[in-house]
Amino acid sequence: MGMIGGSLDAFIGGVHRKAANLDGEIELVCGAFSSKPEKSKATGEALYLNPHRVYGSFQEMITKEKNLPGDQRMDFVSIVTPNHMHVAPAMLALQNGFHVICDKPLAFSTAEAKQLKKVVDKTGLVFALTHTYTGYPMVKEARALIAAGELGKIRKVYVEYPQGWLSTFLENTGQKQASWRTDPSKSGAGGAIGDIGTHAANLAEYVTGSPITEICAQLNTVVKGRLLDDDSAMLLKLDNGATGVLLATQVAAGDENNLNIRVYGEKGGLEWRQEEPNTLVVKWLDKPREIYRAGWNYLSDSSKKNIRTPSGHPEGYLEAFANLYMNFARAVHDYKPGKKIDPARYDFPDVADGVRGMLFVDTVIKSSRSPKKWTKMLR
Amino acid sequence: MGMIGGSLDAFIGGVHRKAANLDGEIELVCGAFSSKPEKSKATGEALYLNPHRVYGSFQEMITKEKNLPGDQRMDFVSIVTPNHMHVAPAMLALQNGFHVICDKPLAFSTAEAKQLKKVVDKTGLVFALTHTYTGYPMVKEARALIAAGELGKIRKVYVEYPQGWLSTFLENTGQKQASWRTDPSKSGAGGAIGDIGTHAANLAEYVTGSPITEICAQLNTVVKGRLLDDDSAMLLKLDNGATGVLLATQVAAGDENNLNIRVYGEKGGLEWRQEEPNTLVVKWLDKPREIYRAGWNYLSDSSKKNIRTPSGHPEGYLEAFANLYMNFARAVHDYKPGKKIDPARYDFPDVADGVRGMLFVDTVIKSSRSPKKWTKMLR
Amino acid sequence: MGMIGGSLDAFIGGVHRKAANLDGEIELVCGAFSSKPEKSKATGEALYLNPHRVYGSFQEMITKEKNLPGDQRMDFVSIVTPNHMHVAPAMLALQNGFHVICDKPLAFSTAEAKQLKKVVDKTGLVFALTHTYTGYPMVKEARALIAAGELGKIRKVYVEYPQGWLSTFLENTGQKQASWRTDPSKSGAGGAIGDIGTHAANLAEYVTGSPITEICAQLNTVVKGRLLDDDSAMLLKLDNGATGVLLATQVAAGDENNLNIRVYGEKGGLEWRQEEPNTLVVKWLDKPREIYRAGWNYLSDSSKKNIRTPSGHPEGYLEAFANLYMNFARAVHDYKPGKKIDPARYDFPDVADGVRGMLFVDTVIKSSRSPKKWTKMLR
Amino acid sequence: MGMIGGSLDAFIGGVHRKAANLDGEIELVCGAFSSKPEKSKATGEALYLNPHRVYGSFQEMITKEKNLPGDQRMDFVSIVTPNHMHVAPAMLALQNGFHVICDKPLAFSTAEAKQLKKVVDKTGLVFALTHTYTGYPMVKEARALIAAGELGKIRKVYVEYPQGWLSTFLENTGQKQASWRTDPSKSGAGGAIGDIGTHAANLAEYVTGSPITEICAQLNTVVKGRLLDDDSAMLLKLDNGATGVLLATQVAAGDENNLNIRVYGEKGGLEWRQEEPNTLVVKWLDKPREIYRAGWNYLSDSSKKNIRTPSGHPEGYLEAFANLYMNFARAVHDYKPGKKIDPARYDFPDVADGVRGMLFVDTVIKSSRSPKKWTKMLR
Repeated sequence: MGMIGGSLDAFIGGVHRKAANLDGEIELVCGAFSSKPEKSKATGEALYLNPHRVYGSFQEMITKEKNLPGDQRMDFVSIVTPNHMHVAPAMLALQNGFHVICDKPLAFSTAEAKQLKKVVDKTGLVFALTHTYTGYPMVKEARALIAAGELGKIRKVYVEYPQGWLSTFLENTGQKQASWRTDPSKSGAGGAIGDIGTHAANLAEYVTGSPITEICAQLNTVVKGRLLDDDSAMLLKLDNGATGVLLATQVAAGDENNLNIRVYGEKGGLEWRQEEPNTLVVKWLDKPREIYRAGWNYLSDSSKKNIRTPSGHPEGYLEAFANLYMNFARAVHDYKPGKKIDPARYDFPDVADGVRGMLFVDTVIKSSRSPKKWTKMLR
Repeated sequence: MGMIGGSLDAFIGGVHRKAANLDGEIELVCGAFSSKPEKSKATGEALYLNPHRVYGSFQEMITKEKNLPGDQRMDFVSIVTPNHMHVAPAMLALQNGFHVICDKPLAFSTAEAKQLKKVVDKTGLVFALTHTYTGYPMVKEARALIAAGELGKIRKVYVEYPQGWLSTFLENTGQKQASWRTDPSKSGAGGAIGDIGTHAANLAEYVTGSPITEICAQLNTVVKGRLLDDDSAMLLKLDNGATGVLLATQVAAGDENNLNIRVYGEKGGLEWRQEEPNTLVVKWLDKPREIYRAGWNYLSDSSKKNIRTPSGHPEGYLEAFANLYMNFARAVHDYKPGKKIDPARYDFPDVADGVRGMLFVDTVIKSSRSPKKWTKMLR
Repeated sequence: MGMIGGSLDAFIGGVHRKAANLDGEIELVCGAFSSKPEKSKATGEALYLNPHRVYGSFQEMITKEKNLPGDQRMDFVSIVTPNHMHVAPAMLALQNGFHVICDKPLAFSTAEAKQLKKVVDKTGLVFALTHTYTGYPMVKEARALIAAGELGKIRKVYVEYPQGWLSTFLENTGQKQASWRTDPSKSGAGGAIGDIGTHAANLAEYVTGSPITEICAQLNTVVKGRLLDDDSAMLLKLDNGATGVLLATQVAAGDENNLNIRVYGEKGGLEWRQEEPNTLVVKWLDKPREIYRAGWNYLSDSSKKNIRTPSGHPEGYLEAFANLYMNFARAVHDYKPGKKIDPARYDFPDVADGVRGMLFVDTVIKSSRSPKKWTKMLR
Repeated sequence: MGMIGGSLDAFIGGVHRKAANLDGEIELVCGAFSSKPEKSKATGEALYLNPHRVYGSFQEMITKEKNLPGDQRMDFVSIVTPNHMHVAPAMLALQNGFHVICDKPLAFSTAEAKQLKKVVDKTGLVFALTHTYTGYPMVKEARALIAAGELGKIRKVYVEYPQGWLSTFLENTGQKQASWRTDPSKSGAGGAIGDIGTHAANLAEYVTGSPITEICAQLNTVVKGRLLDDDSAMLLKLDNGATGVLLATQVAAGDENNLNIRVYGEKGGLEWRQEEPNTLVVKWLDKPREIYRAGWNYLSDSSKKNIRTPSGHPEGYLEAFANLYMNFARAVHDYKPGKKIDPARYDFPDVADGVRGMLFVDTVIKSSRSPKKWTKMLR
């Protein structure tokens, strides 16, 4: 693996590296960690990399790695730059024969996201997008229960992503995470809606297996002076006839990272919270509520494949992230030129999910500006 | 106290009686428990009433009680009939000088609700509406914290009332509760929105102290064959500039009576769930979350006045209900003709809350039929 | 009902009255609320009693009530005095033909408890002891599950009663509850062990159906200057071969009233906490944990008979207490001279439980003073 | 790092490898994964190791690695064999200049544990014992709060380790984990008490900072046919005058890995549960309970140093384990011959904790066989 972005002072780069490390199947062999060569070099050194393989730019990395012998060069690139710097390195990597795993959202704009998808489709290489939260085993269990019809026809979906860390004008203090995430020139058109709303939408569609078809959204900038939205709520219609509510906010003062989902069908309901991710509550019409817990034998295969330890040994965010890397790495391992890999079989989010996330942001923004109640999901 | 409605096979009548009994301050002395005299008589007997004071109709009860000497006749009436039978007995009671405590919603229609309010205002008698949930001590604590500015300016309100008991076509089985509550000729224009949505709206306004000003609603009838809505979700604007989401549904399969509210301000947030009502979670921007628990000395006076036992001795639904009766009874006790009682001082919901509940239902229905996003709260 | 003790400034008297009031089946008609006639009188007045039936002593009350016509006099007495004042009024009431419901522990000493039992047995009258916590519906469910063999042979019992209110030398401040409960001349030989340890032991035996046979106890007085124990822990053997741990402490700083029990058998386990009493967690060897909740149809009859409201309408401490009164009152209602009532059928704790509680305290004290590991339960 | 034990079908070996991998600071370079050379070889291959550095025995590994140039050979060995195979490789490694990190318990017997300690002391090399659970950040927070006197003088400690996985005669089915852990020739004198009781004792002493001084223990073999204890409970005295209860059982049917601790002092109490490890409940005498959560700024340094992600991104068992490896690796990194490393400064359990664990098991066994109540902790 070669990494693009993720110098020492970044947050998500370190997360990607730990996730890639965890299972001992992936080795970081090179990187272009910053557009500033000094910074890239220092990061590579701290990571014990061969200095010859610490590059000053992603262009340099891709070109030079391509020229290494096949058994030495990196197999894939991991892109962990801010949003506006995803597509260019991804394109170049794919065009030079490297698989790609990329942080979300996929791109700065929907237009470039669609272009990238074309390149992925054309090259047939493996492309994963790190929608972390669908990597949790109990999210997979929820999806499996619904897919098996255990809850009957789905009627209601409530998905929430409340955070509190942007309750104050944090970007004004120089805090790096706050700065680029609230800056339209780096983040794109969406603030909270892009940063976390896309996770919520992706989770809802992944768990229910039903795409969102129409949205009625309110998008707010609650903190004075902020340049992008930091709060949203919306009514949803799904294509199976279900309806729902999605909320994503970064001004829920005192909340941490409280992504959660509840789904109700004709026969029962379920409930999952990211902050206690090893528990899935399953509710029934006429018998006691059940507590499904990660690591038990009664779980579905898709859940069991994404757990490392027996029940009662809590796995968390990094393990969920590592599941994405692991499933992506399996696809990379199985890849053969000319034969398209099916991301669903390997169970990781791909470029199509990325395009869909961009369209979701566009649709929410369009709806929020419209006096009409419902806006159809853009395509 | 004289009761109108609440024969033995009814649900809410028994709840009212237990709530009135609990503190030993109120005595049931007479009743017109059913429009069927036999049934009324049997109920009175089961309740150990003097048979002479078990009446065949509310008209009879009010007339005859009025003619009893002042130290013998009932002080007030408790109205626990289905929605369409609230206003007539309430009017008659007030016109004959009796105070009234009435189940919610206030009336079958907004028009008659407003008429009733006029009579209450004119007579100056005490009138309470049993919005049970604001009777909980920790709801009062939430209100007190916000009123004291502890959370700063309020930004977001999320209030939910999910139940699951109408997930099937229960009214078709003869179940009494389901039958009248889904029957427009008894329930009025709203189904779930009237039955439980009004509780949610009342709770949000009580806790935040800010009225809802605009609504963008989706109202659904999920179960085939049902005559009224059984599910709803809506976006809210409040008059202090806050926004929020309200959902009320009776098809959340497996849910019990999960009314809950979360409020976020500039400085912190709070969270309360009716199913564990003695706990109030208070969240802060930069210090540990706090768990406020009923019965402790650190609570506000308004909370402490509505608790009977030390912390760790859970009080529940009936105690919350009893708080309404107790506070109403104090007002009745203090009542003097010609001097208007202030319900806010005694801390119970009154006829104005009842009218507001009716207007809320009308507004939600209007919004749900409108292609426009926002509908102003009706007056 | 006539009450002995329970003047306005007492705690438990008010609890008894509310519990007796709740269901409208019991009426307080007279009382000897204090040994100080003025105080008794003031209490009676506050409770709206006929002044002629507010007595200056329990002797006066019992004598005078006995002389009233059968349809006017009290049916039973409720004894809510401190521990050292339980037996004398109970004896006198029984000897004069009145049934008795009595706060726990039964007596000041085991000797007088045994004497009282003889009188109960001889008169054949109904006698209930208010071990509140077995009145909870989900405790009854736990007992029913175990009795039905659902968990298999029981192996382990963990029962705890941690409170924190005596973490400081509170009796020195004049606080009334603390004063008499830590005073050996009023409380008897046991402090925390009598006050709350007996509840824990009673709960363990009620739920498992297995008597404790041997105890290895440590009894501590943690707070300097205190005259009785305020803390204890002990190992247990039960007569079915199970073993366990019981702890009862009043110096668990910050704890409220956290009585809880866990039982494990060959096939599964269960867990109940008084502070969230409507939930019973049931655990299995190879399937998901289940959450049994008060008010559902799937519960056992013994549980359903002790619930008033549908699931999700929390009932609490006062309702549990009211269940004792209700079940006792049913026995009183069914009582016929010469035909012994079976307390187990009516499901309330009786005088035998009271004697057992006294023996438990004696055994713990004996064990705590012994250098030997095990002490057999006294008889 | 070179690993001894931990072939592909073992449990704890994989855990150690993931823990060592996570932070990218440690590289597995060689191993003697099994006493069966074929198995060792297959494991090394699966782990992408250089085949020349996959050895057939730990003796071979230590000898050959020692002969490699300093910049190539392993820095330390990780020992993950069953209990009876800890000491021999540890000794040999130390004697050849390699630091050691070793799974717990330290040894098969106390005698050999003490011998090992002598070697560690003599060589001055770094030795860590993987008492995983003290690696959790919120355990460190608990220790820091108590050390800072926030709770006042400690009075009570309750520590529990209930598991349910040995509720049946699992070792009879060929399940590998059950087989060696219940076999006295591999596990040593203790069953559950060694496997998990030592974790509980270590946690209690780590959090309170007070050694256990006397024990009154009951040790049971609940499942028929089992050769070692599978259940225990004991009363404790600690050297600061506090008392407590420790229980460790593997027959708590339906329980997972529910290690938990509660500590109470004069001014407050705290509570931590391994299954939701990012939360620490702190209770006070006169103010609201607080919820300390991993990842916040208000935490102590010792806690913050052992967290990777912001609050709300749950870290779990593998991260706690990785903290041990990380802190050990820092000590190895800082090691200079002739200058003793202080394990407390680096905050990892060491050989002295290991000897203490062995003595704890011996003391519990001795106490369980004694008719006397109290047995002093062996030295």
